[in-house]
Amino acid sequence: MSDPVLDFWFDFASTYSYPAALRIRPLARKSGVVIRFRPFLLGPIFKAYGWQTSPFNVYETKGRNMWRDLERICTDLSVPFRRPEPFPQNSVLAARVALVGLVETWGADFCETLFRAQFGEGRRIDEQATIADVLAGMKVSAASVLTTAQSDAIKSELRRQTEEAQRLGIFGAPSFMTADGELFWGNDRLERALRWARQGQ
Amino acid sequence: MSDPVLDFWFDFASTYSYPAALRIRPLARKSGVVIRFRPFLLGPIFKAYGWQTSPFNVYETKGRNMWRDLERICTDLSVPFRRPEPFPQNSVLAARVALVGLVETWGADFCETLFRAQFGEGRRIDEQATIADVLAGMKVSAASVLTTAQSDAIKSELRRQTEEAQRLGIFGAPSFMTADGELFWGNDRLERALRWARQGQ
Repeated sequence: MSDPVLDFWFDFASTYSYPAALRIRPLARKSGVVIRFRPFLLGPIFKAYGWQTSPFNVYETKGRNMWRDLERICTDLSVPFRRPEPFPQNSVLAARVALVGLVETWGADFCETLFRAQFGEGRRIDEQATIADVLAGMKVSAASVLTTAQSDAIKSELRRQTEEAQRLGIFGAPSFMTADGELFWGNDRLERALRWARQGQ
Repeated sequence: MSDPVLDFWFDFASTYSYPAALRIRPLARKSGVVIRFRPFLLGPIFKAYGWQTSPFNVYETKGRNMWRDLERICTDLSVPFRRPEPFPQNSVLAARVALVGLVETWGADFCETLFRAQFGEGRRIDEQATIADVLAGMKVSAASVLTTAQSDAIKSELRRQTEEAQRLGIFGAPSFMTADGELFWGNDRLERALRWARQGQ
């Protein structure tokens, strides 16, 4: 029997997707689960909820607690944390580049590195220069990847990802979905999602 | 040195407060932490966010996932789960009765039993008969408690609790606050909150 698959749905602008992106590959390896990285855009989903920005900006006390909570989580994981400014950042280009990488070999590494750049170093992932720099650091040809990332094929692909997320009832990130359609929302549900993927319950 | 204290803020209508209420006393005992049960009302806080009902009703996909998630959590804990109808239920009387009990000896037991009645057995906690029945089952004089619960003193006390919750930046339930003001939101943060209470970090 082949290893079970778990879909990891995330938006690069999503705060709790940062610890999830750092944790998911080692945990999945231990659980014998294959992870599919599924970048999508939360924006259209939030707009349908009536939010023009992150709910953490819309609801101030909730946002304040989230930043503190994320800082605690990063401390517990011994990973760096720096609150990005502005927040949230436009993640369209990042998601498109990730889609290019995910059909090649460097997609998951790119995702992890870009999350670290944003939430660990406070860099701007909405700037092409940051993404080019991250790609260069991975020995990937930034110019060629950025051209592909802006192609109609990849633009449509990202739209399709986001539409699929909506159709699956995904309303936040990170979200995890098993092959049998069980949906888990939040970095704190990652272990449970992996167990479900493995055991079917 | 006396044992550290952790405040457990909850609303009887809050779904994730159910597993938290069942888990908190055994876990606190193991951690050497004293729990203060702090019932309050989420209604005024939600109204300030523009919600006239639970956000799980306002945001449908989020609500659907919450019920499924709660069911999974209850299965994992081997505790019964039944989705209450209607949801949310008016929790004012329940909170007032809890305040009476919490200055006597039966407050925490009442809270736990009433959560079980609502989310384990699907009973209506917005009906005085249910609360009277739960009190009777605990060998507490329902008539006398219900009279005290409707006194001006207890009514004001509940208002003060809710105002204090708001002042502390509490925006959801369950929430846990340590003596040094560290706020944790959600049943899934209970273990971390206990550790903070114990270690101050």
